[in-house]
Amino acid sequence: MGGAVARRLATSKDFNVTVFDLSADAIQKCVAVGAAPADSVATAVDGAEVILTSLPTTKLVIDTVTSLLPLITEEAVIVDISTIDPMTAVEALDLSSAADRRFIACPLGKTPGHAENGEIPLFVGGDQDVIATLQPLFDRMGEKTYNFGTVEAATTFKLVSNFIGMTNVAVLAEGLSIALKAGITAEAFTEALAETGAKSFQSDVRLSWMINEDWAPRFGINLAAKDVRLAVESATTWGIPVPVGSAALAQLQEASGLGYGNEDVVALVKLVAANDAAVAS
Amino acid sequence: MGGAVARRLATSKDFNVTVFDLSADAIQKCVAVGAAPADSVATAVDGAEVILTSLPTTKLVIDTVTSLLPLITEEAVIVDISTIDPMTAVEALDLSSAADRRFIACPLGKTPGHAENGEIPLFVGGDQDVIATLQPLFDRMGEKTYNFGTVEAATTFKLVSNFIGMTNVAVLAEGLSIALKAGITAEAFTEALAETGAKSFQSDVRLSWMINEDWAPRFGINLAAKDVRLAVESATTWGIPVPVGSAALAQLQEASGLGYGNEDVVALVKLVAANDAAVAS
Repeated sequence: MGGAVARRLATSKDFNVTVFDLSADAIQKCVAVGAAPADSVATAVDGAEVILTSLPTTKLVIDTVTSLLPLITEEAVIVDISTIDPMTAVEALDLSSAADRRFIACPLGKTPGHAENGEIPLFVGGDQDVIATLQPLFDRMGEKTYNFGTVEAATTFKLVSNFIGMTNVAVLAEGLSIALKAGITAEAFTEALAETGAKSFQSDVRLSWMINEDWAPRFGINLAAKDVRLAVESATTWGIPVPVGSAALAQLQEASGLGYGNEDVVALVKLVAANDAAVAS
Repeated sequence: MGGAVARRLATSKDFNVTVFDLSADAIQKCVAVGAAPADSVATAVDGAEVILTSLPTTKLVIDTVTSLLPLITEEAVIVDISTIDPMTAVEALDLSSAADRRFIACPLGKTPGHAENGEIPLFVGGDQDVIATLQPLFDRMGEKTYNFGTVEAATTFKLVSNFIGMTNVAVLAEGLSIALKAGITAEAFTEALAETGAKSFQSDVRLSWMINEDWAPRFGINLAAKDVRLAVESATTWGIPVPVGSAALAQLQEASGLGYGNEDVVALVKLVAANDAAVAS
């Protein structure tokens, strides 16, 4: 996702983009469309007005923000586009504020493909004056900015949207398996389901992949498991019981354990496909 | 639902409708639009070509079909529009076939309000020659007939659609509660969620009721619990693990136990609303 956003910005004359990644290949893909390469984080952020961070774990966000703070100017803004939990976002904000630096949370919706074309929603939170100055950046990155106020609210929203969406996928897999076992054809199921209260973004988009056993990772099991886990952990911290989403999390984690981690979340259906041998035994 | 369908048929010149119900008030509402009243099941079905049954439990469907069989002619068709499980549907079909009578499963989609206006989908299954002769009836009852082949498939489809839809409601309630706790406003949540993979029929239709604490039962907790239970029981019989839908069933049953049985399923949110007192203690 970070590469897609960097390329989207690098292809605009309004932004000068310098990129750093642990993968030389990832850097090269951005350089190919006009970004400048950097050989370290320190080089990349030298003199930067805005530092975009896109990282796979919450620990790396904290570590990276910590290492960035002595390297950047007072005017610079760190904009984290990772999907992180609200506690981590507040910690990153507090670290930044203590160093008299600015931190904005900006998790992104949809996919890298959409980000490449600026077709993503942005979920932002943090200091409102800072956010106002960043609007031209947001306008280039995505098609709509949703301002949730705080970093806590913005990061929670992203987690919750995946928490709901992935649970909808998990129960869709269960329902499809029951239907097929009853002798309903995949075609009849798909056509009629769209007429019912079971219809969803996930049934519109993912049901056909599930039926066709198309496991190509548009959104992979491991990434989904991370986001849903962070949502469940936040709920637990706040004393909110979430048994249904927790059941979906357990399915994602089981699928990961079975080796499906890099397959699309529709691979959840493999856990619940009718097993005649087991029933017969 | 039975009353709505009876009125829909009684207001057409193509059908002569006789109604029986344990409630005199329910009978009167149909008589008011042209149906003939009956004072017993035997009187109601005397000479009938088609007998529509709409009953609240699977046991009542079996009991009613059993009591109908000696009362109806060889040419008559029992069309059950109740929401029942596939095992019950097969039992009713087998009972009917053994008595040389015909049984069609025809669970209905959407609400009584839609049924009143013929705007419902019909999910039919059973003998295909019999279904063909019933098409004019189906065309008056609803706007589209989905023919699933067998009574098992038709009844399973209806259960699965509610199994998925109600689980989508349950996790939506959990997600809303997390979001509100993070300081996200209901308005911001609603607007942004529609842009994400969490969007669904249920978020489009029910999220506003959930936010506004509008518990009026468009589809009540007890009815939903029954349908989801039948889906889970069918899955269990067939050896299909359905942990996510089962978690939603447990929530519905808990809500029923807490006295919310006659409230809309959006009342599930009451189980998961953030409880600061509990967290603080």
